[in-house]
Amino acid sequence: MADRRDLNQLGLNAGKKARLHRILHHHGLRNGTALFLPYDQGLEHGPRDFFANQEASDPHYVLRLAVDGHFNGIAIQIGLAEKFYWDYAGEVPLILKLNGKTDIPPSDHALSPLHAGVEDAVRLGADAVGYTLYVGTPAQSEDFAQYRQIRAEAQRAGMPLVVWAYPRGSAVGAKGGRSSFYAVDYAARTASELGADMVKVNFPHPEMRTGVPPSYDAEFSAQQAIDAVVRSANRTLLLVSGGERAGDQAMLDKARASIRAGATGLIFGRNVWQRGLAESLRFVERLHDVLSEAKPRAGATDPAR
Amino acid sequence: MADRRDLNQLGLNAGKKARLHRILHHHGLRNGTALFLPYDQGLEHGPRDFFANQEASDPHYVLRLAVDGHFNGIAIQIGLAEKFYWDYAGEVPLILKLNGKTDIPPSDHALSPLHAGVEDAVRLGADAVGYTLYVGTPAQSEDFAQYRQIRAEAQRAGMPLVVWAYPRGSAVGAKGGRSSFYAVDYAARTASELGADMVKVNFPHPEMRTGVPPSYDAEFSAQQAIDAVVRSANRTLLLVSGGERAGDQAMLDKARASIRAGATGLIFGRNVWQRGLAESLRFVERLHDVLSEAKPRAGATDPAR
Amino acid sequence: MADRRDLNQLGLNAGKKARLHRILHHHGLRNGTALFLPYDQGLEHGPRDFFANQEASDPHYVLRLAVDGHFNGIAIQIGLAEKFYWDYAGEVPLILKLNGKTDIPPSDHALSPLHAGVEDAVRLGADAVGYTLYVGTPAQSEDFAQYRQIRAEAQRAGMPLVVWAYPRGSAVGAKGGRSSFYAVDYAARTASELGADMVKVNFPHPEMRTGVPPSYDAEFSAQQAIDAVVRSANRTLLLVSGGERAGDQAMLDKARASIRAGATGLIFGRNVWQRGLAESLRFVERLHDVLSEAKPRAGATDPAR
Amino acid sequence: MADRRDLNQLGLNAGKKARLHRILHHHGLRNGTALFLPYDQGLEHGPRDFFANQEASDPHYVLRLAVDGHFNGIAIQIGLAEKFYWDYAGEVPLILKLNGKTDIPPSDHALSPLHAGVEDAVRLGADAVGYTLYVGTPAQSEDFAQYRQIRAEAQRAGMPLVVWAYPRGSAVGAKGGRSSFYAVDYAARTASELGADMVKVNFPHPEMRTGVPPSYDAEFSAQQAIDAVVRSANRTLLLVSGGERAGDQAMLDKARASIRAGATGLIFGRNVWQRGLAESLRFVERLHDVLSEAKPRAGATDPAR
Amino acid sequence: MADRRDLNQLGLNAGKKARLHRILHHHGLRNGTALFLPYDQGLEHGPRDFFANQEASDPHYVLRLAVDGHFNGIAIQIGLAEKFYWDYAGEVPLILKLNGKTDIPPSDHALSPLHAGVEDAVRLGADAVGYTLYVGTPAQSEDFAQYRQIRAEAQRAGMPLVVWAYPRGSAVGAKGGRSSFYAVDYAARTASELGADMVKVNFPHPEMRTGVPPSYDAEFSAQQAIDAVVRSANRTLLLVSGGERAGDQAMLDKARASIRAGATGLIFGRNVWQRGLAESLRFVERLHDVLSEAKPRAGATDPAR
Repeated sequence: MADRRDLNQLGLNAGKKARLHRILHHHGLRNGTALFLPYDQGLEHGPRDFFANQEASDPHYVLRLAVDGHFNGIAIQIGLAEKFYWDYAGEVPLILKLNGKTDIPPSDHALSPLHAGVEDAVRLGADAVGYTLYVGTPAQSEDFAQYRQIRAEAQRAGMPLVVWAYPRGSAVGAKGGRSSFYAVDYAARTASELGADMVKVNFPHPEMRTGVPPSYDAEFSAQQAIDAVVRSANRTLLLVSGGERAGDQAMLDKARASIRAGATGLIFGRNVWQRGLAESLRFVERLHDVLSEAKPRAGATDPAR
Repeated sequence: MADRRDLNQLGLNAGKKARLHRILHHHGLRNGTALFLPYDQGLEHGPRDFFANQEASDPHYVLRLAVDGHFNGIAIQIGLAEKFYWDYAGEVPLILKLNGKTDIPPSDHALSPLHAGVEDAVRLGADAVGYTLYVGTPAQSEDFAQYRQIRAEAQRAGMPLVVWAYPRGSAVGAKGGRSSFYAVDYAARTASELGADMVKVNFPHPEMRTGVPPSYDAEFSAQQAIDAVVRSANRTLLLVSGGERAGDQAMLDKARASIRAGATGLIFGRNVWQRGLAESLRFVERLHDVLSEAKPRAGATDPAR
Repeated sequence: MADRRDLNQLGLNAGKKARLHRILHHHGLRNGTALFLPYDQGLEHGPRDFFANQEASDPHYVLRLAVDGHFNGIAIQIGLAEKFYWDYAGEVPLILKLNGKTDIPPSDHALSPLHAGVEDAVRLGADAVGYTLYVGTPAQSEDFAQYRQIRAEAQRAGMPLVVWAYPRGSAVGAKGGRSSFYAVDYAARTASELGADMVKVNFPHPEMRTGVPPSYDAEFSAQQAIDAVVRSANRTLLLVSGGERAGDQAMLDKARASIRAGATGLIFGRNVWQRGLAESLRFVERLHDVLSEAKPRAGATDPAR
Repeated sequence: MADRRDLNQLGLNAGKKARLHRILHHHGLRNGTALFLPYDQGLEHGPRDFFANQEASDPHYVLRLAVDGHFNGIAIQIGLAEKFYWDYAGEVPLILKLNGKTDIPPSDHALSPLHAGVEDAVRLGADAVGYTLYVGTPAQSEDFAQYRQIRAEAQRAGMPLVVWAYPRGSAVGAKGGRSSFYAVDYAARTASELGADMVKVNFPHPEMRTGVPPSYDAEFSAQQAIDAVVRSANRTLLLVSGGERAGDQAMLDKARASIRAGATGLIFGRNVWQRGLAESLRFVERLHDVLSEAKPRAGATDPAR
Repeated sequence: MADRRDLNQLGLNAGKKARLHRILHHHGLRNGTALFLPYDQGLEHGPRDFFANQEASDPHYVLRLAVDGHFNGIAIQIGLAEKFYWDYAGEVPLILKLNGKTDIPPSDHALSPLHAGVEDAVRLGADAVGYTLYVGTPAQSEDFAQYRQIRAEAQRAGMPLVVWAYPRGSAVGAKGGRSSFYAVDYAARTASELGADMVKVNFPHPEMRTGVPPSYDAEFSAQQAIDAVVRSANRTLLLVSGGERAGDQAMLDKARASIRAGATGLIFGRNVWQRGLAESLRFVERLHDVLSEAKPRAGATDPAR
């Protein structure tokens, strides 16, 4: 089992370290792992995502769920943050999601426009900001340009930057698809090269091999793949996302492999709130069980050698 | 016994509420009270304050004391914050003291110049900023002008503003002195009128009556005085400072009266660290005993629920 | 054998001269030559480049290699610089690579977007910045526009500007290809015309003649070609890049011809770290042997003495 | 013998660490100590300081002395830096002195106006900036205000900030004088509280006791005094200045006591260049002998605990 | 006889070198010396200075004199430059004097306020700017602050900066007076320390010794004094001003001693135009005779070759 990353060894400035310490050690299990609740699907997919559990349409309900479920943070867009976060300000960390888009137009030139900036996150008392980077999109130049601005502001404000690193665009489809080991591994590394403090990726699928570069066109187990992805992220903490709702056991397996690989945590939305409250909390408890197995980094070496 | 102030009822924006929630409910006794450790005496008085306990000359030692003593925050200047806070970032809230001065030149026109701004506090992950306002100084105009800038920035950044409200200047001396009930009461109200979120005052001395206005030239008990001061601060949370080292029992009596009056907490420096570590921690324990007697505001209604 | 360029004769301002002096005379062989380690392949090609030697996936390992191998500098992107350079700050010069892209989308309109600026390089204590200029790309206008900004900032900050001058785009393919003598020679001159202080080019291939202009459609030896490229770069110091891993002897021949031509140095990445540590260091030693043969400019007079 | 400070344990950002590493480990004895050559006396006192050795009037001569004497840096004003540093750019680190004044008008309200900014230091390739802070001056507010600007710029640029911490003004005279243990100790602490990375002080005189606070009105040896001053500076590296030319043996004793106390180094100007070249270099050699006795910090503890 | 300074050896950037080359090698004797015509007395003293030769009241007349007398430049204020320079633009170099004042109020706190900036000089096609610095004035802080701005702009614009370095203020009077060797020597050095490209001083009077520092309280010949002043200016080119009209022979002696000392030239106004045209031109011819005796720097090596 890989070691958890020690906040002293990540090259963080004081503000980022203070805020990540709060997220990882003052909330959730307080053991350096994280369970985040993403709640931007109302913009990204529209209200259809709430049909399975109509209560989840209410941001107040989901914030309450984040508090009661002892999540390490909730990720929401500026509009919901402005109107709903005050109610629970400080009770659960806020990750202000800075960009987002609807899924109505086609996504072959995917680009996620900004809706807010780091100064909004500071003002609202957020402990991190989130940015969706579409790795491999033909709109790479515009994407990197707006990302650069956010990265620089986050650095100056000591605000942790969580990158939703999503492979997208026709070239991605032709080289194995969005969730191939190749695409996810490249996405994690890209986030690291570009200065993300945390990166959110889908669980890698090593069996998606059609069109991938030769190095990835070989037999890899799921564990080998997620191990490599954590390595590619190096000092950028890795979060595995749940994606569409799937069977609980599959989710827990994915979670367990990720934690074993050294991931810092999970960011599960639909798999959590697309069911009734009691059931949601029970599932959260099982996720916490997985996170509680994480071992702190043993024999941590001095960052300065 | 007065009720503790409820954060939902203070007219705070989301960021200030989030940060005060962290200070008051994720640190110390987690019951809405606060015990702060001020450590700017090296600038305000010089190293002579460390002669009683040489270890206290080392900021690392004092930060460690703040962590181990479960303080709700430590107040330091920019220089120490830049070089020492990283070591414990997030483990104890940082109150970045924004202004300060040496006591070498005479203080008849007392003015405390700025050394840092709210953006530094944001960058370092601080949960509040501190500003020394010399209530009554002939340099009032410059003081208020630079204070105004800080207040506005703090409001924009959702950063709680703690005002060290200190009566100073020759006029103060002629009207009862720095610690008279009159001067302290006026200072608390001034901070409240000017938008402080917390105000730090000396414990009022109702017996200092020479030259005070008629209304204060009457018999008041210490408890009546501190009750009035808390009332003058209204939605600005009140902190009572320890000042020069004095007998422990006197300090505890002062603390008890303050808490009984509804003060939010204590900010004790020299009385804590001008002795050996074990003794410091024992005294902190006794202060915590006093704070633990504080009752949460009864019947507080949650406006958001 | 051509003479090394003397820093006093390059039209440099004080800051650029100071920083280049540090790179060329306080590191590596300290004889005015340079061996740089480029490490941006994780972004440019993805983690597949690390499959040959998994350790090389870890930026800390590669930084250590740069220090232990006595390199004159390491070229990395902002994300790795922020999180890893502190560990070895000052022990090996940092060349902050300012732009970069993934190779997922097609490169027919190649453009390398900015991720950082000269102010980041200053802040991190870098001794140079790197910029990839795609000479010949149809996106030339955008490329030159963002390059201009960087050039001007670098001039103001006294920061040496290293240009990765890479022929790219369909027109290049039709006129001899990326590594033809024609394309490399034109790229070197373009960097010089546009104010680069150092230029990184591939070794020119005079035998790639299909479609090149008549002047280049003749018999040239490899030595003649690299001699011409160094001449085209004039006061812009020339670095020859290693490119994909190839046989050691071929690399050493390339290196020797370059140094003989008057190139300032080599910038070899995959050929160095795509093997185990001991083997890497042995290869570096052989490269140093080549660089140690470089003669300082004969009869160079020191204007300041 | 006290330990040398380890650059990993000073709370420095990457740029400051890189530049201090260069100063302390790539120049002089390369053992973490420093010998600096200050050369701003032509402005501070006028050309009379050069009458003892006319050659010292020529900045080129003094820069050459800094190079040949293996100094760790030379501190000069903007005018000399603009016109003379290019000649030796990178050969000896430049400390750009940012403020300064003539000694013609009286100094009772001493204030040293700015002549350059951190951006000039960046542009010239300097490795540090210097600022004269007149601790105790009645012009404290203006001094602190312009200092604050420089401190913030230096932090953003990763540029080490060396503070000339000089007690000045009538209040200082009345409380023991400029070089009393009290005044020097307070000055060192003030620089530390306000974020200096290095502080230059005069050697403290514990026997100057007239008017000092009670804590300092006791018997202290010179060694005890300098020990305390180093402690007051804590993570701010301490430099002891030579002041007016005095006997060599007295200077060496002062140097030895400082190094024994854990000071990082010496900054000696007139004592060095107010004699012929050969004699200057001989004296430098004796200073280097003292610095070579400095022990690296033994058993350095991890900065993160 | 001292050597003329070579423009290649002054640490000038390209723009300053180009403009000084024009002044020194395309005008006047074209031998690297300079004869300037200052014409700001109408502001500094009022029209009384024109009573001796009423024609000199007309700027057009004086500009024509500058052209016909083959001066290397004329120094005028913004108002005259705006309205009169167009007539002879390019025929004689313009030195735009940027600050100036009337002599009506007392000058104990002398400060010369700005009337124009470097951008005006660029717009008008000037080849240099002039700034009056009152060395020793109690208004030193304001003076240095506005000077700093001009120096920085001139550096950025490649515009030579000529400093009128004038000792002024009560402290100067008490220490030997405005034209003492001590005061002039200090003024020349101050201009050099603060980055002037040329400095205009009065001829030093070593016999003014009342109140000067001990080093200056000795027997010095006029030649020794002016030799020292040129040395103090080092790479800042020295101009000797004529001051009030005096006997021609005295003026020529002063000029000869200055040139012998290595001064670059003379800046004579009232001694030139306070007489009829023909007589003015005859005197100019005699000054040119003196300047023609100046020897170019022997054995100067070209740094660029």
